[in-house]
Amino acid sequence: MTQLHDVSLTQIDHTNQNSYVVGVDIGGTNLRLALTDMSGTIVARWSTGTVGIREASRVVELICDGVDHLLQQVGASRNSLRAISAGAPGITNVDDGIVIATSYLMGWRDVPFRALLEDALGIPAAVDNDVNLAAIGESWAGAGASTRDFVFLAIGTGVGAGIMLNGRPFRGMSWTAGEIGYMLVPGTPERPADLGQPGALETIIGGEGIKDQWRSLWRADSTALPQELTATQIFDHALQGDALAQTILNQTARLLANTIYNISLVLNCPLFVLGGGVGIHPALRDATQEILHKWGTRVQPQLLLSTLGADAQLMGAIRLALDTAQEHEAKTLR
Amino acid sequence: MTQLHDVSLTQIDHTNQNSYVVGVDIGGTNLRLALTDMSGTIVARWSTGTVGIREASRVVELICDGVDHLLQQVGASRNSLRAISAGAPGITNVDDGIVIATSYLMGWRDVPFRALLEDALGIPAAVDNDVNLAAIGESWAGAGASTRDFVFLAIGTGVGAGIMLNGRPFRGMSWTAGEIGYMLVPGTPERPADLGQPGALETIIGGEGIKDQWRSLWRADSTALPQELTATQIFDHALQGDALAQTILNQTARLLANTIYNISLVLNCPLFVLGGGVGIHPALRDATQEILHKWGTRVQPQLLLSTLGADAQLMGAIRLALDTAQEHEAKTLR
Repeated sequence: MTQLHDVSLTQIDHTNQNSYVVGVDIGGTNLRLALTDMSGTIVARWSTGTVGIREASRVVELICDGVDHLLQQVGASRNSLRAISAGAPGITNVDDGIVIATSYLMGWRDVPFRALLEDALGIPAAVDNDVNLAAIGESWAGAGASTRDFVFLAIGTGVGAGIMLNGRPFRGMSWTAGEIGYMLVPGTPERPADLGQPGALETIIGGEGIKDQWRSLWRADSTALPQELTATQIFDHALQGDALAQTILNQTARLLANTIYNISLVLNCPLFVLGGGVGIHPALRDATQEILHKWGTRVQPQLLLSTLGADAQLMGAIRLALDTAQEHEAKTLR
Repeated sequence: MTQLHDVSLTQIDHTNQNSYVVGVDIGGTNLRLALTDMSGTIVARWSTGTVGIREASRVVELICDGVDHLLQQVGASRNSLRAISAGAPGITNVDDGIVIATSYLMGWRDVPFRALLEDALGIPAAVDNDVNLAAIGESWAGAGASTRDFVFLAIGTGVGAGIMLNGRPFRGMSWTAGEIGYMLVPGTPERPADLGQPGALETIIGGEGIKDQWRSLWRADSTALPQELTATQIFDHALQGDALAQTILNQTARLLANTIYNISLVLNCPLFVLGGGVGIHPALRDATQEILHKWGTRVQPQLLLSTLGADAQLMGAIRLALDTAQEHEAKTLR
């Protein structure tokens, strides 16, 4: 995937031939960076673990390390960087470049992450919520490329939605549109989760929720499988015919179908792209689509699997970095 | 409410001093028309019953009768009409002026209602879904006037939402955004209603649903009240202390709180305006707001009662007619 470029020029190259942008995906366990040319082709990748790292300043330091590693890979200098963009796992004010709140794991509150990046690297930066970036990624180069209106559903440890309306991310009045991990549907608890706790839906169809479903129904005489399995392992076993695993798959699919149906009613969106570590499992998509088909209602959303997979957020960050570079150039030329 | 105008000029009056538009609200039981001057002030009203009338052509005839009655009231001629706009109780393609589908009561399918009105009256016409028009009305001259993002909830026989985003109605890709009478929340049936049937939510918190709740819990020894009451009578009795009526009120408020919460999660909308014959009852608003407050979640939508009441749809139709007149004038002057 790495391409070599002529990097003899160290001054700013307005032809963009030796220009790059960086996309960053800040996850709970990993920090992933990609360097692309101005057409968005990835020319280098870098990643590192982030377990135990909470401070935003430390994350920025790691990003700077990563940027230098990326530039080394292609033999380029920092002068060739046009912009950087990062996806954060939390509510993000895109206009002001502030991460308003992340989950308890990182515990960020009102972190001016765009300014931190700009100060550290001296280039234009942008920051957005990671699920919104995944939606942007799928819209640009993935399963949502053929339509201007779709919903990206991220189902991993958490559950959230990135909403694309008329080709643009819809972020809501205070940047929390698509927080559907808290949705109340038949089968969830009747009242919302408390502040800072995982949402009602998330506790059942998120990765941990599915493991909990398995544990609560598991009995030694009901399955030959162990009591501890991951969500994707459970879905694999459902495909291989284990009856208990099929029960968990069907329960999960039913709640997901309820959720997709409700979102459809509000937004009238015809396409849902399923992503995230759990959401990308074909068994979940197939079981959920089957339920929606059986209902035979007016609302018949189509479910597609993410084609970018684990790269969806990163590709969205790259798209945002390219846009940021372009906007900066347009301003400079004015 | 009726003002008299000098109508000696029968030719088109480009000063707009003696110009009017008509707003129409097509309901299941009543057809209501209002004539306004170009500032949107209502100068005359007219209405008639529509029970048993299904054909669109017959509705257009009634509208023409009504228009002539309105013009007589102010002593004006048809030449002084600039535009007409109608709200239909069904899914409506606003771009093409086609009512795609109404409920079984009227049974319209793909009715080119805008063209029918334009042919009959010879003036520019527009047509939209009645709940969307109610949202436009509240946005222009009602409880939503202070914000650009809110959701109008119509709770009457049916349950639906009109969504305003950034000051404009959001209608969805195929004109069905806001069909929340079908929403699935804890307390509704677990699967959606069949095609053409009332939605899962509607069957419980719509006017008939609330009457059904009352009937199903009613026992002669549990209340002194009769077995047949309307939704608003039940809410009135709840305020007066009847325990069974309070149970119905609280059940209804709980499902409505779930619904509002879910819509908030998707849209991140801070304001909900409650309207419709049932939705406008203050007891329902208060009970629902109390539940949302108790939850103490990040999502804290404010609930306001419609200030336009039964006129919300009509005011939206007037706004749309004024816009239609203006657009036509702009086109003509080009």
